[in-house]
Amino acid sequence: MMRTTRLEAFSDGVIAILITIMVLELRMPEGGDLAALRTVWPTFWAYVLSFVYLGIYWNNHHHLFHVVEHVSGGILWANLHLLFWQSLVPFVTGWMGQNHFAAAPTALYGLVMLMSAIAYTILQSAIIARQGRNSLLAGAVGRDRKGKLSLVCYVLAIGLAFVDQWLSDALYVFVAVI
Amino acid sequence: MMRTTRLEAFSDGVIAILITIMVLELRMPEGGDLAALRTVWPTFWAYVLSFVYLGIYWNNHHHLFHVVEHVSGGILWANLHLLFWQSLVPFVTGWMGQNHFAAAPTALYGLVMLMSAIAYTILQSAIIARQGRNSLLAGAVGRDRKGKLSLVCYVLAIGLAFVDQWLSDALYVFVAVI
Amino acid sequence: MMRTTRLEAFSDGVIAILITIMVLELRMPEGGDLAALRTVWPTFWAYVLSFVYLGIYWNNHHHLFHVVEHVSGGILWANLHLLFWQSLVPFVTGWMGQNHFAAAPTALYGLVMLMSAIAYTILQSAIIARQGRNSLLAGAVGRDRKGKLSLVCYVLAIGLAFVDQWLSDALYVFVAVI
Amino acid sequence: MMRTTRLEAFSDGVIAILITIMVLELRMPEGGDLAALRTVWPTFWAYVLSFVYLGIYWNNHHHLFHVVEHVSGGILWANLHLLFWQSLVPFVTGWMGQNHFAAAPTALYGLVMLMSAIAYTILQSAIIARQGRNSLLAGAVGRDRKGKLSLVCYVLAIGLAFVDQWLSDALYVFVAVI
Repeated sequence: MMRTTRLEAFSDGVIAILITIMVLELRMPEGGDLAALRTVWPTFWAYVLSFVYLGIYWNNHHHLFHVVEHVSGGILWANLHLLFWQSLVPFVTGWMGQNHFAAAPTALYGLVMLMSAIAYTILQSAIIARQGRNSLLAGAVGRDRKGKLSLVCYVLAIGLAFVDQWLSDALYVFVAVI
Repeated sequence: MMRTTRLEAFSDGVIAILITIMVLELRMPEGGDLAALRTVWPTFWAYVLSFVYLGIYWNNHHHLFHVVEHVSGGILWANLHLLFWQSLVPFVTGWMGQNHFAAAPTALYGLVMLMSAIAYTILQSAIIARQGRNSLLAGAVGRDRKGKLSLVCYVLAIGLAFVDQWLSDALYVFVAVI
Repeated sequence: MMRTTRLEAFSDGVIAILITIMVLELRMPEGGDLAALRTVWPTFWAYVLSFVYLGIYWNNHHHLFHVVEHVSGGILWANLHLLFWQSLVPFVTGWMGQNHFAAAPTALYGLVMLMSAIAYTILQSAIIARQGRNSLLAGAVGRDRKGKLSLVCYVLAIGLAFVDQWLSDALYVFVAVI
Repeated sequence: MMRTTRLEAFSDGVIAILITIMVLELRMPEGGDLAALRTVWPTFWAYVLSFVYLGIYWNNHHHLFHVVEHVSGGILWANLHLLFWQSLVPFVTGWMGQNHFAAAPTALYGLVMLMSAIAYTILQSAIIARQGRNSLLAGAVGRDRKGKLSLVCYVLAIGLAFVDQWLSDALYVFVAVI
């Protein structure tokens, strides 16, 4: 069994790196004037959105592990599973930005978000399963309406991406805000 | 509430990564002789400047949190806000270097610096607000003339970039020195 | 002599970075539709495989050092040796993915895996040598059949890569599962 | 004043990132056969050399700070100065490898190594100055013949690079071994 601090430090490291390398997808424009900067604009906004998302996950991650002292193998792999989906965020962020929030990249972005949310739910369940139904965390999580609403929003956004991608992008912002 | 050590470790990680990936913007020159190296020269100096800036922020960041024990949600997001603007430093550094300190990139560099400085001020206020006006930090910060002078310098530098960018660059060096 | 926590933190950092920069090898496709995504497909699976491998190593690494309190110079360099081979994982992962699991990249992937496994065995021996044959770890490791089986599989997979690379890739998945 | 653990963690982070992003300079060859791999060969060896160098620095860095409890502003900046020169290692490693150990890149590599060694000496002096001449560290460092020999070797190697770069590269290996 591993101490929680270790798992947290590792997860912090991965999220810190993800948040930082995302900015590498902001490819430098060719020219040196303000007009050249406009080509970076969509990627910039995709970056802002993903930065906020990863910030939220980092924040939630800590609340989740706040009451945990030791982690089992199951929790460890549930956590790696979550990090796996989050590690794809820079890729989908860059792809979405570079294609000006086109349908397919927007849908893929939603898919990665959906898988992250599911991975988070699995991790949460694994921790609660270990601590018992009556634990502090189980109470705090409760029926977790926000979590379930997020899942629904992501599924909606993936479908909507092929109809009107702006509606889909608006949904991502909406989830981040709640 | 999060322990400060965690927030510090995360911020340290982000700044360490930023300082290191900046060097990736030093694109390897085509040829293998010293003449080829000359094309990297402006980016090198932009790199030195940004390295010093991030070093200063890292240093100040620690002094800021030295007396803080727990962080609230507000402080946490004020800190992420600061990291967001700093994460743009490698991008603007590379763009400024690649365009030989041209007007627009120099102005953008100043904008990112200005936003970082503002984000730092917000973070400082959030911490003082939490600790009370009579706290140690509130006293240490005092009227913070250096901070205010920096803000003025950045605004000046952004404007000057379109008149004479060297004057503007000189201002950045000046702020780093004080 | 170094405290183990330091060596662990450093190794954690390196593995966290490796797992994250691997995703940078997922080069963004040119187009913005789902068809364009197909070109990334093989690299994606190579990435999944390597992510699981590095996850396993990270997990094992902790179990290995769980009972160690101080590390000697020998252990330190054995650990750096292991990290060296693992640092090549993103490179071979990207090369294998980009060439659709062709013979040579698949063999090279196996070579890096083999060298990592050997480096791990050396590290294990260095720790046992220091702690004594009767130590807890020596008992836990025992005859380490899984470890030896892995080595055999990697050698087989390297040879098989030039006959039928899919058989070779299947072997990598098999080792990861056990 | 900053606790040493913080400065060490930050330095560890930077070195861990440097050692890892160096591998990004191993550009994937175009083809998928073993012949294509030959183009990566020189960069690979440059990478091995730099990996060992950074490993040595990381190791020495810890011995240096082993007896230090608090760091002053001077030590902090001396440390950042050292990290600055080390952050250039991936760049010069890649340039040297890509140009098959040509004269100019080999000389530049030596220059970065020389500056790192000088920065290390400055850091050492800053720590001793703070702890007093009779301190444990001052005794351990003694006349530091190895350190001085390294400096001489680097200067020699920079000059030799323009005469016979292989002799120069041999010197780098020699310094790493001692």
